[in-house]
Amino acid sequence: MKFTGKILYVLSKPAPEKLKSELSNIVDELNKTVLVKGVGKPEYGAKIVGYTIVNGNVLVFNVVSGRRVKIHDAALRARKKLAEVLGKKYRIGIRNIVLEDVIIELEGEHKVSLKVPYVKNVEVSNGRTLIYLSTLEESDIKKPIVDRLIKLLYEKEQRLLWGGKAEHWYLVKESGVKRKIPPFREDPNKILEEIGWIKRFSIGQWIYTPPFTYLLNMIKNIFLDKVVKPLGFQEATFPKMYPLEVGLRTGHLRGTINSMLFASLPVSYDIAEFEELIDYMYVTNKAPAEEVGKYVKPPSYFLCFAQCEPFYQFFSKEILSEESLPIKWFDQAGPSFRWEAGGIYGVERVIEFHRVE
Amino acid sequence: MKFTGKILYVLSKPAPEKLKSELSNIVDELNKTVLVKGVGKPEYGAKIVGYTIVNGNVLVFNVVSGRRVKIHDAALRARKKLAEVLGKKYRIGIRNIVLEDVIIELEGEHKVSLKVPYVKNVEVSNGRTLIYLSTLEESDIKKPIVDRLIKLLYEKEQRLLWGGKAEHWYLVKESGVKRKIPPFREDPNKILEEIGWIKRFSIGQWIYTPPFTYLLNMIKNIFLDKVVKPLGFQEATFPKMYPLEVGLRTGHLRGTINSMLFASLPVSYDIAEFEELIDYMYVTNKAPAEEVGKYVKPPSYFLCFAQCEPFYQFFSKEILSEESLPIKWFDQAGPSFRWEAGGIYGVERVIEFHRVE
Repeated sequence: MKFTGKILYVLSKPAPEKLKSELSNIVDELNKTVLVKGVGKPEYGAKIVGYTIVNGNVLVFNVVSGRRVKIHDAALRARKKLAEVLGKKYRIGIRNIVLEDVIIELEGEHKVSLKVPYVKNVEVSNGRTLIYLSTLEESDIKKPIVDRLIKLLYEKEQRLLWGGKAEHWYLVKESGVKRKIPPFREDPNKILEEIGWIKRFSIGQWIYTPPFTYLLNMIKNIFLDKVVKPLGFQEATFPKMYPLEVGLRTGHLRGTINSMLFASLPVSYDIAEFEELIDYMYVTNKAPAEEVGKYVKPPSYFLCFAQCEPFYQFFSKEILSEESLPIKWFDQAGPSFRWEAGGIYGVERVIEFHRVE
Repeated sequence: MKFTGKILYVLSKPAPEKLKSELSNIVDELNKTVLVKGVGKPEYGAKIVGYTIVNGNVLVFNVVSGRRVKIHDAALRARKKLAEVLGKKYRIGIRNIVLEDVIIELEGEHKVSLKVPYVKNVEVSNGRTLIYLSTLEESDIKKPIVDRLIKLLYEKEQRLLWGGKAEHWYLVKESGVKRKIPPFREDPNKILEEIGWIKRFSIGQWIYTPPFTYLLNMIKNIFLDKVVKPLGFQEATFPKMYPLEVGLRTGHLRGTINSMLFASLPVSYDIAEFEELIDYMYVTNKAPAEEVGKYVKPPSYFLCFAQCEPFYQFFSKEILSEESLPIKWFDQAGPSFRWEAGGIYGVERVIEFHRVE
């Protein structure tokens, strides 16, 4: 990750001639001290590679920086030092900082949405990605939105350098235990279906008939009685459908959006507005998702994915006393949903599953 | 409900002169017998109001009919009689029946979707609705799709004539019991929220903390132990999200689509395809439904609405012995969802609710 661009300091007065002649020393000083302080290798820090004064009162630094002192960090670091020098010696203040023509260069070829704030253009070529930012004012620089953008870009780069999961495990040692051939080697899913204990409902969804429900309840009760309750957990009841904002807070929308299910409201509470769709379904006896979709709003919820989501909501504005911790709650109030389209099998890997969590 | 249109009988040979002269009698006979048989008032039956022979071998009847012998019923009724006469006397067969220029006239002004099969055009004016059908061949006439269309139109007309719910109840008598003022008159919802037993989650959704969950479980257990189990019901576990086709079969998509919630799958199982959206959410820390909606397929599921839905799926292709009836199952495996936007209040009327059913 590399940054290039211009830092503009808007001064409160025109720069005097004396300052101009002194700039070379100030820049050298900045490059040797605050711009590389605590960065390890100098290339991780920032460097002023050119400077000039325009319009009399705008001090312009051309900067190249690494990831430890990003260009906007450099602007703030240098500001502090500059303000000292300018204030003491010339009684000049710094009115504003502007970043212009900032380009963030990433290793690897990345897709970056042009809808992301401050991203003006993206160029991808020869294993590198150039991200052109729009002009940033001092108020922008201090916003978390810029930090989030840069953190995102850094993570994209790292993820690519780090590679996928498959490369990162290897067998250290195998235990000496001989692999016994289990006495029962049939597929229990097939047997359960044949004897009518489970019945296919839809992709990754099953109906559990009373004998199988009984069996699962027994296993659940053992878990509750021997583990959950002795550990002091109490039952709470969590909703099973969550507003999208909750998924932002938990990080699921960023990390697992490809395996989540989304929920939408009907376009209206007035059935008269559905009349044409109802007629269509009535006569054709079909309900194509595309047609139904026209009468449904964009998805404002997602279905319970990882059980814990309502905790974020519950405690989001709470201040807790230390004595009240840890909070020991469990929930078994309904199913969770994961679109494991690539990996479903029998009742082992399903789209809709029950759990105590 | 009134029908007008032409019935065309395509004959296997040109009609001889003798048949032409006999047509008047045949038509009279049809109008007096098969076209009004069993209809009560004659205007409920069908009437041939004109006839001609075109292209030598196409017998055309202009027909007006009521709802008891709809024009396509009339075509089939008259066909039988005609086939007899033509076969015996002239050795002529009927190759095909075609209905042309059929107009269905309804009392009241109705919206009818032009996407409905066979509907060519709709005119609404002066308290009447005219529905123009496209040409129907014999094979169409025999399809349930035409019957469904006509049934739909009939129901629309009836519903309008019958009026809304509000007009159809009146107070017969009030019991003499004096209305006692209950000793507790506060709003329990407010108290539950104040003491932290329930917490607002989203519109019509609540988190039930352990004390409230305990209370609800006690009430549930009394119901299970005193009512459900003594009656011989056994617990089954039903999915809580259903393919749209199930909603067609149960009738919910036609009857309650305005209060249902719909579920959608992500557009892809590959997270790389969500990269731009993820970037956007990462940086802005927002997840607008419109943006998320672009990465979600049209809704192919609806959320559990009336609990019973999977029963339809379960027994849809089953033949049951009489001894196995009644099937006594109950389900408590998760919540149901109703978009009661107009009527939610506290934990009394919610969007997501738990039940034993």
